[in-house]
Amino acid sequence: MTIKVFGYTASPYVQMVCYVLKELGLSYEIFQPTTYEEIKTPEYLATKHPFGRIPYLDDDEFHIYESRAIARYLVNKYQGTKTSTVLIPSDVQKAALVEQFISVETSYYNEPLFKMLKQFARKKYQGIEPDLKIVNEAREELEKTLDVYEKLLEGKDYLTGEFSLADLLHAPLTLYVINAGEGELWNKRPNVSRWLKNITERESWKNIVTEYNLTA
Amino acid sequence: MTIKVFGYTASPYVQMVCYVLKELGLSYEIFQPTTYEEIKTPEYLATKHPFGRIPYLDDDEFHIYESRAIARYLVNKYQGTKTSTVLIPSDVQKAALVEQFISVETSYYNEPLFKMLKQFARKKYQGIEPDLKIVNEAREELEKTLDVYEKLLEGKDYLTGEFSLADLLHAPLTLYVINAGEGELWNKRPNVSRWLKNITERESWKNIVTEYNLTA
Repeated sequence: MTIKVFGYTASPYVQMVCYVLKELGLSYEIFQPTTYEEIKTPEYLATKHPFGRIPYLDDDEFHIYESRAIARYLVNKYQGTKTSTVLIPSDVQKAALVEQFISVETSYYNEPLFKMLKQFARKKYQGIEPDLKIVNEAREELEKTLDVYEKLLEGKDYLTGEFSLADLLHAPLTLYVINAGEGELWNKRPNVSRWLKNITERESWKNIVTEYNLTA
Repeated sequence: MTIKVFGYTASPYVQMVCYVLKELGLSYEIFQPTTYEEIKTPEYLATKHPFGRIPYLDDDEFHIYESRAIARYLVNKYQGTKTSTVLIPSDVQKAALVEQFISVETSYYNEPLFKMLKQFARKKYQGIEPDLKIVNEAREELEKTLDVYEKLLEGKDYLTGEFSLADLLHAPLTLYVINAGEGELWNKRPNVSRWLKNITERESWKNIVTEYNLTA
């Protein structure tokens, strides 16, 4: 059975799942909702995602939602079966550090990026000017986070040293915010900039960018 | 070697870690920073938690930060060695559903609670009146989340059916917000109320409440 991903290819959270699927060498099919309303219907809420979000995944009738949980599930089930990529190592301490950096991504990195992205999306999809106060506050928050990343990445190619799920999860939202003209935030920090290059130049991510037409 | 937890016992995130430690039957020692400034010193940032937060854990010289990552590490390393409590099942699909609900807790539950708590803490520690607009918006957000929980918990004792790490992580922040007088949000929903009772009446949680003096 082909794995089914439900969600918009334009969603960074769907892209996270696709990046994992490609790294693990798994084929999948994407089902894009035709309207935004579709993911708010009683049927969708009852059978797909009770909070009315995307993505959700259907793997031979096993349903799961929440992108980072989907990612961990795919790793636990399929890692090592089709490719040699290790996204979560089997060693308990190494796995713990991957989880530590997934939490760092969720708490300190994703949040300011998501705030900025929301403002830029207002402009793009609704023609409403972004709230510059929110954008500036989020940018300031992100600068602080990236200052810490710059130190954490000193002498390292990836957050834990080796490429992992923690690095991968950073790619989609970062691309969007860079496409919105904020690339300097990453470029001016040599370690951060090298790290981002390492993550975004992987074959599987480049394929996603091309396939889903994600370039600026 | 006794496991060392660094952080304030008054922190819900420290309490999450203690709840896990107790469920797994592990002994630990808590080291409380003497001042808030201590967790912002260059030494603390360089060797303990680069974002200047608590808790962090030291397990025989292995250091890890971020409460949910610490929880997963403790489960992976120690589950089944001292008690029979299963916080993350070994079955891949069951584990995936635990992760799904950890993500639900982080994204839809923890966030409004944390916003409310921040306002109540301003009042308690700084004498500043809470911003009622923020409190009301957060309460509204929480009502929506709890409406979904009420459906998810229909006919179930716990989120995945069995007690798991996902349920456990809800306890500390919930207690604080209930102590601040918001108990009706949980009480008026029969399934949510039953579920919360199941989580908070466990021996290990009751011990934390007594030991750290967490009652209202």
